[in-house]
Amino acid sequence: MIRVYAHAGGATRPAERVERAWLEPGSPVLVWVDLFNPTPDEGRLLSDVFHFHELAVEDALSTSNDPKVESYGDYLYLILHAIDFKAPEHCFKTHDIDFFLGKTYLVTVHTDESRSIEHMADICGRNAMALGEGPAALMHRIIDMVVDNYRPEIDKLNERLDALEKEVFEKSNPRLARDILDFKRDVASLRRIVQPQRDVVGRLARREFPFIDETVAYRFRDVHDHLVRLVDEAMFFQDRITSLLDAHLSIVSNQLNTVMKILTVIATVFMPLTFITGLYGMNVDLPHFGLGGTRMFWLLMGLMMGISGVMLWYFRRQGWI
Amino acid sequence: MIRVYAHAGGATRPAERVERAWLEPGSPVLVWVDLFNPTPDEGRLLSDVFHFHELAVEDALSTSNDPKVESYGDYLYLILHAIDFKAPEHCFKTHDIDFFLGKTYLVTVHTDESRSIEHMADICGRNAMALGEGPAALMHRIIDMVVDNYRPEIDKLNERLDALEKEVFEKSNPRLARDILDFKRDVASLRRIVQPQRDVVGRLARREFPFIDETVAYRFRDVHDHLVRLVDEAMFFQDRITSLLDAHLSIVSNQLNTVMKILTVIATVFMPLTFITGLYGMNVDLPHFGLGGTRMFWLLMGLMMGISGVMLWYFRRQGWI
Amino acid sequence: MIRVYAHAGGATRPAERVERAWLEPGSPVLVWVDLFNPTPDEGRLLSDVFHFHELAVEDALSTSNDPKVESYGDYLYLILHAIDFKAPEHCFKTHDIDFFLGKTYLVTVHTDESRSIEHMADICGRNAMALGEGPAALMHRIIDMVVDNYRPEIDKLNERLDALEKEVFEKSNPRLARDILDFKRDVASLRRIVQPQRDVVGRLARREFPFIDETVAYRFRDVHDHLVRLVDEAMFFQDRITSLLDAHLSIVSNQLNTVMKILTVIATVFMPLTFITGLYGMNVDLPHFGLGGTRMFWLLMGLMMGISGVMLWYFRRQGWI
Amino acid sequence: MIRVYAHAGGATRPAERVERAWLEPGSPVLVWVDLFNPTPDEGRLLSDVFHFHELAVEDALSTSNDPKVESYGDYLYLILHAIDFKAPEHCFKTHDIDFFLGKTYLVTVHTDESRSIEHMADICGRNAMALGEGPAALMHRIIDMVVDNYRPEIDKLNERLDALEKEVFEKSNPRLARDILDFKRDVASLRRIVQPQRDVVGRLARREFPFIDETVAYRFRDVHDHLVRLVDEAMFFQDRITSLLDAHLSIVSNQLNTVMKILTVIATVFMPLTFITGLYGMNVDLPHFGLGGTRMFWLLMGLMMGISGVMLWYFRRQGWI
Amino acid sequence: MIRVYAHAGGATRPAERVERAWLEPGSPVLVWVDLFNPTPDEGRLLSDVFHFHELAVEDALSTSNDPKVESYGDYLYLILHAIDFKAPEHCFKTHDIDFFLGKTYLVTVHTDESRSIEHMADICGRNAMALGEGPAALMHRIIDMVVDNYRPEIDKLNERLDALEKEVFEKSNPRLARDILDFKRDVASLRRIVQPQRDVVGRLARREFPFIDETVAYRFRDVHDHLVRLVDEAMFFQDRITSLLDAHLSIVSNQLNTVMKILTVIATVFMPLTFITGLYGMNVDLPHFGLGGTRMFWLLMGLMMGISGVMLWYFRRQGWI
Repeated sequence: MIRVYAHAGGATRPAERVERAWLEPGSPVLVWVDLFNPTPDEGRLLSDVFHFHELAVEDALSTSNDPKVESYGDYLYLILHAIDFKAPEHCFKTHDIDFFLGKTYLVTVHTDESRSIEHMADICGRNAMALGEGPAALMHRIIDMVVDNYRPEIDKLNERLDALEKEVFEKSNPRLARDILDFKRDVASLRRIVQPQRDVVGRLARREFPFIDETVAYRFRDVHDHLVRLVDEAMFFQDRITSLLDAHLSIVSNQLNTVMKILTVIATVFMPLTFITGLYGMNVDLPHFGLGGTRMFWLLMGLMMGISGVMLWYFRRQGWI
Repeated sequence: MIRVYAHAGGATRPAERVERAWLEPGSPVLVWVDLFNPTPDEGRLLSDVFHFHELAVEDALSTSNDPKVESYGDYLYLILHAIDFKAPEHCFKTHDIDFFLGKTYLVTVHTDESRSIEHMADICGRNAMALGEGPAALMHRIIDMVVDNYRPEIDKLNERLDALEKEVFEKSNPRLARDILDFKRDVASLRRIVQPQRDVVGRLARREFPFIDETVAYRFRDVHDHLVRLVDEAMFFQDRITSLLDAHLSIVSNQLNTVMKILTVIATVFMPLTFITGLYGMNVDLPHFGLGGTRMFWLLMGLMMGISGVMLWYFRRQGWI
Repeated sequence: MIRVYAHAGGATRPAERVERAWLEPGSPVLVWVDLFNPTPDEGRLLSDVFHFHELAVEDALSTSNDPKVESYGDYLYLILHAIDFKAPEHCFKTHDIDFFLGKTYLVTVHTDESRSIEHMADICGRNAMALGEGPAALMHRIIDMVVDNYRPEIDKLNERLDALEKEVFEKSNPRLARDILDFKRDVASLRRIVQPQRDVVGRLARREFPFIDETVAYRFRDVHDHLVRLVDEAMFFQDRITSLLDAHLSIVSNQLNTVMKILTVIATVFMPLTFITGLYGMNVDLPHFGLGGTRMFWLLMGLMMGISGVMLWYFRRQGWI
Repeated sequence: MIRVYAHAGGATRPAERVERAWLEPGSPVLVWVDLFNPTPDEGRLLSDVFHFHELAVEDALSTSNDPKVESYGDYLYLILHAIDFKAPEHCFKTHDIDFFLGKTYLVTVHTDESRSIEHMADICGRNAMALGEGPAALMHRIIDMVVDNYRPEIDKLNERLDALEKEVFEKSNPRLARDILDFKRDVASLRRIVQPQRDVVGRLARREFPFIDETVAYRFRDVHDHLVRLVDEAMFFQDRITSLLDAHLSIVSNQLNTVMKILTVIATVFMPLTFITGLYGMNVDLPHFGLGGTRMFWLLMGLMMGISGVMLWYFRRQGWI
Repeated sequence: MIRVYAHAGGATRPAERVERAWLEPGSPVLVWVDLFNPTPDEGRLLSDVFHFHELAVEDALSTSNDPKVESYGDYLYLILHAIDFKAPEHCFKTHDIDFFLGKTYLVTVHTDESRSIEHMADICGRNAMALGEGPAALMHRIIDMVVDNYRPEIDKLNERLDALEKEVFEKSNPRLARDILDFKRDVASLRRIVQPQRDVVGRLARREFPFIDETVAYRFRDVHDHLVRLVDEAMFFQDRITSLLDAHLSIVSNQLNTVMKILTVIATVFMPLTFITGLYGMNVDLPHFGLGGTRMFWLLMGLMMGISGVMLWYFRRQGWI
């Protein structure tokens, strides 16, 4: 699907198609072209009308490229990643959006539906001044929305981490190891996506490219701050999950220790007792020390109580019970 | 709440409001404006009177931004973090203070009460020369106090770490894993806050910005040294807590080993004895080797003592008991 | 084996041998020479005809050198690594291809059969324009194929990692530790090979060498992107396998805990019971509390049931069973 | 305590006090002033006579600052750390020495007694040429001695590490975990002190400051080499202690494994035997298979020996015993 | 021992002693002086005849310095490390060789016998052109041999690592932890020696020093490649040994798990059985449910078989046996 918005004579209007004349450097018309999941036929627009470099076009039409920015002289080619809102819950997924930024035009290409672009298209449809500030400002607004959409994802990760922490300390969960692994993978994915994105936007903010004037660069500096913060939080999550795993192992070791102490106390107390009962259960003449009736029984009981008492006192002194 | 202190004709005095004329580059009046938890109406001062950049104003009026310094041509915008003294004990929290530094003015914005700013306001109220050295020197004094307030927090962390160390080696604590995790998180927060702060103050000390003259830069170099030291100590804490966790795991492993040795010694000694008593407890004709009376009993007792003795000797030689 | 393809007068044709005249800087003939597993006699071509530096020739004729690029003034010497498709399954192996790139010639040397070079030779045999774009473009096409051949290898590694993950969580495997170790080694090898390769191609893309014109440099930028992605994925694999090992240890610890709890519950329940039966199995006068017939038996049974019940209730409250 | 040594007319002599005239840039008198644990009154010398910057004076009179070097235009301010020889054995402590280096003077300030400075004062008292090479050479000699004094400390750490290694492999020590932790902390302290010191001396060696001429810079390059080596050894110690802890955990795990195998062998052999004796100890009619006398006993004994034999053979095949 | 080889008039010949005239910048004589374990008297040659800097001479005559290169204007001072072939097997040791390289001379100093230098001396004795290419080329040849001698050492380390791997997976070895620790230490030593060596040779290859002309620099680039490879392999060894330790811990944990499962199965099966036999071993009236003869016995046997069967079925379903 192709959408075209052209801004000429002070008003932004949807257009049927891209006029070649609009793309001339000195053209008074500003134009935004959005290709959503383009057919091969629609994709040919990039090379036939815009004359973009074949490698950039190839990248734009394929999926899953890492974020980057490249200058091709009279236009910039950018890849950024937006949150994929159609991915299942508890699963971090992104899709890429490609930008071609020229002096008088912005072309966006994406295969998945993007909330930020839909929102921008909406604005362009209603607000006659939407394209008035030029294509760089338009691109800033889209990127700003893309980055803002990471925030709820971060909050979800934070909640998941809090839940994992609770599980480690409060209630056991056989799926815990797997949940921690899943969490680690999602955080690693987040970092892998956001880190190059931060560098890309940082280059826009530092005005390395002549298309970005100072006003827009200030705005990109703001977006860059948000991305720096995201990277920072991803690192912090990684630290916390690693610490959590350490805490988990420490808790399991302590529990094992406790269990083994209980077993040892029980076994150590009852083994001598069972031995003594076995001794007087033998079918040989047993020494009765002249005790008649059940008095021998009570003597042995007393002996056994004494042994248990000594042992329990010993374990208590060791701090086991 | 807005407080205004103006310095003109050699004396610092509280003022009712900010005169537009005071902000002209060549104005003889120096002014400090403090916005504490500003209402939206008070916040409008930043854009309407001072004409600060809208993105900086937005950052200043929001909370929880990372420390940074940005130059906007004729003024600097700084964010630093101060210790939040209203946070509960055993919990590391900070709030941000925003500074706008111009040639003739300093504007501070903060949503939480700041001890350093209260103290500075006090001084300005009493000392007619407080603003005499210019807004950069005033900013240095506030930042110096902010950084000095980190010191007791570091000492508290040190005490907590010492207590944790004592617990690991001396007395067990079921909350140990959680306390170590909490400590790690607080130290990570400290490092996350202090590290960018160090870089911000470092840039002030290196005189990257023309507002900071050499005298004030020397003073910022001193503040920078304190921050370097704080970062250093945070790293050292992290090292120590990691080592402590290792020590803890090593101690638990050793204890488990000891417990298992005790269990094994007890079981290994008593199992053969119980077997022998069981043997002579069987209801079959038992070989008595011609021994009458309780002599058979004493023979078996002797046999069992012998077995135990051999085993205990063996375990002693192994160094277990 | 030596193959020579010469391009003159607009057509690429196989040639018998390299004419010395073709190698002059201003020669109108472009030539590609491929040495596959050269005999010492064939290898002498490099020094005798091309006059390459003796150290470069030595490197080219030996095997197992790390990827690098070196400028020798009027020619470049490159080493890259290609996937060795003859290595056994589940085993990551590469062999090196050496490139000498001059203004009018490309020389490739390799001791193992290379798919990319075979494919290129095929094209040169059929397509009269194959060498028309110059030796740098030809080299780009070979390197592009070499790098593309890494992709299925990465997919294989990904599958192996998924299988390992499944084994860790679902079914135990005595070879698991070894499989994880093998995987780690393969990923480390991948990273060791791909990382210097990325840097080599990065230098080609950045146009550090005058032989590479802008058109070809753009293409190398594309290859560089692929290599950046490969390095990135190797790092990601390493992260994942480390996390997997952690998960494995955590699972084993938890299982051990479970096993020990079962043992402790069983031992703790049956030891007192066995003691009581031993007590009434002694050959002394036992107190019967005036109970006749089997009523004493049922009394003891009741006592024992009671003790078991209390213990099981205690363990349930502890959350063990 | 203040000591003053002045060098004029080719001879170094102790002086009563510092003459203001000596400090003029072109003064023919070279002077070394040492302040050992200065009283507030003595400390005032730094600001009143030498006119050092107030922040540097403040640092010099306080204790526990990190090593650094700062240029204040016509003098350098250095902080270095010397080994504190009065600290208890098996404990790594340092105290700081402050240097102010001008064209014609050197001022040293320290609150703890420093061996290097005492030694240098001794030399100055006896050798009339001691100050002849200028204050920078004098400072080099003091710093060289300070750095040389680290060597025995490193040797002590090495011995402690060797002892720890012996303990891990040969004899157990309940204090082992604590000793390792203490060692780690001391090595971390060493590294924290020596690393900035290396950078400080490196800057002196690289002739960043005009006071240091080439001859003295060569000597500082030598001191720098020693410090590089110290940092290197501290890193090596850290590596070794970490490996040692790993080895310790591996040994403990192996021991636990051995202990558990013994317990399992014993329990697995005796439990079936005890069951069989229990079986024939029951007070029900037992099957005797027509065997009279003690032959039934020997039959059961044989059965039990057989079961034990099979089990022991099985465990031996498993490599447990 | 001092050996002198002088090259004049197109021939290299051993000489009795160093003539001062040979060392003049424009001298037509090239000279190589080798000091092997010099007496203090021989060592004085360095300062008295060559006038080397006293600090460099001091370093050259002492042992155990880290590799480095230093320029002293008209000569270079280098320290490199060669493999010590007299060290015991399974132990990585090096000794240092010092080089002074001037325009017309090379001086080598070493306290241990060096294979590379012996070999070079041999060549100088037989080949009249050995010194013809100048002292830098001579130094390259010695350094090349020194670096080549690392190769068998690396192969030995590789074999040791393979043997350790086999031990971890196939047969246990009580010395395993110690062997791994020794290996780690040797690899760390290797890396500590080779890394600065690589940097030193890298600086020679980059032609930072005017004595090294382009031809020799190309050769040093080759040596540098070998050292890069050595560092790389040392890193790879470290990775592998760390992974191996992880694998070892994982294997031990799994074994412990297996052992504990066996113990738990045995205990869980036999404890109830022993309880039942104890129950009918009591000296109270036991319920016989009207069963006469040994039928009661077989009833109990059946009950016990049933209990065992249920338990074994349960453990099998859990996947324990």
